[in-house]
Order: sequence, then structure tokens, then C-alpha cells
Amino acid sequence: MATESQAAIRFGIIGAADIARKLSRAITLAPNAVLSAVASRSLEKATNFAKANNFPPDAKVYGSYEALLDDKDIDAVYLPLPTSMHVKWAVSVAQKKKHLLMEKPMALNVAEFDVILNACEENGVQLMDGTMWVHNPRTAQMKEFVSDPQRFGQLRTMHSCFSFAGDAEFLKNDIRVKPDLDGLGALGDAGWYGIRSILWANDYELPKTVIAMHGPVLNEAGVILSCGASLHWDDGRVATFSCSFLANMTMDITATGTNGSLQLHDFIIPFREEEASYFTNTRCFFNDLVTGWVPLPSEHVVTTDIPQEACMVREFSRLVANIKNGSKPEQKWPIISRKTQLIIDAVKTSIERGFEPIEIKW
Amino acid sequence: MATESQAAIRFGIIGAADIARKLSRAITLAPNAVLSAVASRSLEKATNFAKANNFPPDAKVYGSYEALLDDKDIDAVYLPLPTSMHVKWAVSVAQKKKHLLMEKPMALNVAEFDVILNACEENGVQLMDGTMWVHNPRTAQMKEFVSDPQRFGQLRTMHSCFSFAGDAEFLKNDIRVKPDLDGLGALGDAGWYGIRSILWANDYELPKTVIAMHGPVLNEAGVILSCGASLHWDDGRVATFSCSFLANMTMDITATGTNGSLQLHDFIIPFREEEASYFTNTRCFFNDLVTGWVPLPSEHVVTTDIPQEACMVREFSRLVANIKNGSKPEQKWPIISRKTQLIIDAVKTSIERGFEPIEIKW
Repeated sequence: MATESQAAIRFGIIGAADIARKLSRAITLAPNAVLSAVASRSLEKATNFAKANNFPPDAKVYGSYEALLDDKDIDAVYLPLPTSMHVKWAVSVAQKKKHLLMEKPMALNVAEFDVILNACEENGVQLMDGTMWVHNPRTAQMKEFVSDPQRFGQLRTMHSCFSFAGDAEFLKNDIRVKPDLDGLGALGDAGWYGIRSILWANDYELPKTVIAMHGPVLNEAGVILSCGASLHWDDGRVATFSCSFLANMTMDITATGTNGSLQLHDFIIPFREEEASYFTNTRCFFNDLVTGWVPLPSEHVVTTDIPQEACMVREFSRLVANIKNGSKPEQKWPIISRKTQLIIDAVKTSIERGFEPIEIKW
Repeated sequence: MATESQAAIRFGIIGAADIARKLSRAITLAPNAVLSAVASRSLEKATNFAKANNFPPDAKVYGSYEALLDDKDIDAVYLPLPTSMHVKWAVSVAQKKKHLLMEKPMALNVAEFDVILNACEENGVQLMDGTMWVHNPRTAQMKEFVSDPQRFGQLRTMHSCFSFAGDAEFLKNDIRVKPDLDGLGALGDAGWYGIRSILWANDYELPKTVIAMHGPVLNEAGVILSCGASLHWDDGRVATFSCSFLANMTMDITATGTNGSLQLHDFIIPFREEEASYFTNTRCFFNDLVTGWVPLPSEHVVTTDIPQEACMVREFSRLVANIKNGSKPEQKWPIISRKTQLIIDAVKTSIERGFEPIEIKW
């Protein structure tokens, strides 16, 4: 018989958002998690969602978020609600002693994030944001590469971009273009990933300064549809990112160190979920006549046993199981979330102040 | 019997620089060009250069630049001298009615460039800079892609980078780190390519504004070893580039349009000279569950009949042959050179003025 510590973590989903379909599958695929309930503001919607997403027969459906939070059989909540609703519901989740896996952006600003973080800390629950790519086994391999003093050396420059072309319907009605829902727009959505990738490659060392690029595009309601920024460290490291709802799908990283380089074109969502690749080169130079490269760069292919979002659920559930066994919540994840949110805030402030450099303070 | 118009263009090389070895081979490989002479300040050096680089038996060697310029059997000069010597020698070349293929950067600033351009125009000779990659057949294919309203659409964002790790000897003694030789440093050398690639992708439409990135690295003599900048157009297009002598070899382009994206990792010097590849995707989006891409991006491989530098010599020689047949010099190439030089100047000025936006005026 399974003891409590070995039992799968029981997830409740609050909000039947589109992205929750992907997470439902991920929870199903993760070996240590199980779909226990879904709540929507409409019982019918919750019921349909559970049916369409292969919830187990004994899973519960709720017509209110509060009802799910009162369910003592739920260990953890996945919260894909619009960002403007995060503080209210994240704090409620924490107060009900449920662990919290929450979609990015975590909050509309760091002050809001800290309210959520404090609630989680006070109630001893795990907090993690829903950035899936960092849980892909490819990311761990790439991390080994960029951390290797021989193969990569010290990071010098980096560029990261994420864009996708929202259609007319998206640009008119998606929650990510609405100031009262996901008011950070492309910066909070697409930009979150670029910023995270830059922090990731810098071993989460915060930059000293952030400067927004001139030329952000805002919609009529003032929501950012595309923008970019540069991040600067004291030792001369420079990283840039761009994010957009107005350009064709691109998700590139180019990171250059003193000894090596890393490139990939699908860092957020791999082209195919079964495997993912990346390019590296170490101490490449021109051949004698400057007509080619020596040595040639390499492409590395990494296979995944379960999709990256299931890896994320597995890791989150592992931490929750540890807490049930007496461990403390893992601080690494909320710290990374907070750093990402700090940079988001700085880019926004820099735009508001006419592209002034913004100093980053933890 | 070959008429004058069909005869190979007779090249003289002024300065036995390292890069001239590559151009000697290119002139040999180009079907419409021939190595006729080389000049160095030392006759011995010129003689050794001619021997080491497979000059034809009847090629001449000169112990002074002036002597080569007085040779009536030379049609065109390849000039790989340090940038600080360009005005003097380029003007001399033009005044001797010889066509001029000159290494980049063309000049230390646009004012100097214009002196060279005027001399070439007054003397009816062709001027072209030694940017080789634009002559690769791959570049023509990529140009078709980025010019295609369906496959690529309007360019929205672009990033280009070129870095290589200069060793201790390079960083101490190379002409590109010396203020009195190639005083534009990494900006004039590596940055030239990034800027050119951005202009290329923008169909050579000049940006309205250029802003240098914070954090350039200069050596003790004030020469730029690494820097970056952003270029801005009125319609919201943003392009960034970085260039460096202090980071591992990287030469990436990521260009994103409204409908398509272009990426490559070896835009200046292809990994192998026989073939070169690039990646594209058009109207890619997430699959329904956001777990993969639809459609998948493509890799395109382009084979080259002769190396890109030989393609450059072939094109230059074709234009020179046309002029010999009564055509006027092709203005496209000096215009592109001047635009590149204008952006170089703007980046330098922006750095000098504390990263102020610099308006670009033709």
C-alpha cells in the first residue's frame, strides 16, 4: 500500500483556460501527480473541461473557485487565471494550505508578487511559476554547457527573442491585450521567457541596469504589443531581448561566452515534443585562409521521456511530496520568479520614463 | 581571339596583408579576373607573397605602391591596407583610373569616405567594398525570402552579431586594435558586417535613429573592442547588433517579419565554403495544445560553384568589364558602402555622447 509520502500529488485546476488543457495532460503524464478537480465560475464549463481533458472518473468538478479551495483532498492548485486575478486567488490558495503552480507572469508588479510570496511563506506552501522550458532535459544539458569554464567560459553577450503573430481576434480579444486582465501584454507574456532565459544563462545573477529599447508598440488601451530591452552587468556583460505579438513565431537564443557559443531556435516550445536540439561551438576560429570554421560547430539532440510541462509538474510534485514529508518549500523557484518579475517591472518603468536606465535592486 | 571586353580583369594588390592571400586565391578562381601584380613596401615581401600565392609567372612584383599604380597593364586594385591609409591610396588608385576593390571599413568616417567616392566618380572607376558574404549565392536566396511578402512579410525585428576571440597577440598588436591604423576597432571590423546585414535585410533603407548600447569595451588606447547598438525606423522596426573581439566566434542573424523568420549561424564566413545553409519558417504557430510547432521550420542548403570571395571578384570584374565597354560604374555598391559607414559613424558618435540617439541623415 502506498504511504502518504508516495501518493501522487492531487491537483485542482482553478479556471478552465485554454492553457489548462495542456497542464491537465501534463498532470496526467507526470508519474507523481493526479488530476483531482477543476473549478470554473460555471459548473457546466468545469464539467465539460473535465470530460474533454481526460479527468479520472472520481475527479470533482466545481462551479466556484472557493468550493475547490475548500476541498481537503486537494494538495496543489494550478492557477491559469488572468494576471490581474493572481493576488486574490493565489493568496486564497496559500491560506488554504495548498501548494501553488501559477501561470506567468506571476503578478502585475513585484509588490503584488511579494504579497503572494509572503502568503505562501506564511502558510508553508510551495510556489512555482509555470515556465515549462526550464524543466526540459535539454535545458539541463545546455546549463551544463554554459556553466563549463572550458567549453563556454564567461558569458559576454546574449540575445533572446520570442514573438508570435497574434491574429485579428487575438489582438482584439485575448486577455493578454486587455489592460484589466493581463495588463503587461507582450512584456509579461512573451517577454517573461526572454528575461528568464537571460537570467538562466547568467546563473540568475541580476543585472545592474535595465534599459528599454526605443520603439515599443502599444495598443489603444496602452498595453504593450512589442518591446525590447538591454540588460547590463558591471563586468560588461550585455544581454538583449525582444518580445512581440506582432511578428512571426521566433524563439531564439544566442549566447556567447569567452570560449563558446550556444544557439537554439525553439527554446520555449521545442519544435517537436519528443526531442529537442541545440547548437554549440567551442573555441571556433577561422581556418588559415579565413574560408571556413575550425572546428565545426555541433548540433546536440536531447530526447524527452515525458513532455517538458510534465517534467515541470513532476518537479513541482516532488517538492510538494518532500514538504508533506517534513521538508521546507524550495526557495529557488520563487526567487527566480521574483527576479524575472523585477526585470519586467524595470523594463516597464524604463519605457514609462522615456527609456531611462533603471537600476535593479533586490 | 578574345576582344578587350572579354579579357580577364587584371588585378594589382597593394599591400601584402594576410587577408590578401584569400583575395589572391579568389582572383585566381574568378573566371573573369587575373592576378597581374602585387606591391609591398618591400620588394622581397612582394616577391615572397607572389610566390606563396600562386601568382602567374608573368605577374609583376613591386617594391612600392606607386610603381604598381603607374603600371598601365593593371585594370583594378585590391586595397587591403589599414583604414587610416585608405584615403591617400584609394584616391591615388582612382586618379590612375584604376577600379577599386577595398577592404572594409572603407574609411574612418563618412567625410573620408566621400573623398574616396568623389575621386572614384571623377575618374569614372568602380568602387566596391570587400564584404564577401553578400555575394554568396546563399545570400541571394535569403534575399528572395526576406523580400517575399507572403513568406516573410514586413521585417519587424532583427538581431545580428559577430564576435571572435582575439588572442593575446591580436589584442596587443593587430592593426584593428591600434588607434592610428584601424581606429574603429571591433566596430569597423566585426560591426561592419552586422550593420551591413541589417541594411541588407531592410533593403538598404536607412534607419531614422541609431543608439549605441551601454557597456562598450575599449582598450587603453580608446579603441573599441566590443559594442552594440539598436537601429530604429519610423514604422517601429527595430534591429540590434553586437560586435566583439572578446567573445567566442559567433555570426548569427535572426530576422523576423510579420509572416516569416530567417536564421543562420555563419552569415559572414560559411562553416564550409562548398555549401551554406539557413533556416526559415513561414506562418508558424503552436499546435492546438501548444506542445509543438505547425508547420515545422525548414533548413535550406545552398551549394557554391566558387567561394563567396571569388563571387565578389567575379561581380566586381563584370562591372569593370562593362565600364570598359562603355557603361557607367554601378552606383549600388558605393551607396551601400556609404550607408554602412554612416551607421558606423552614428554608433561611434552615440558612444561618445553617452548613448544618445543619433539621427541618420544621408
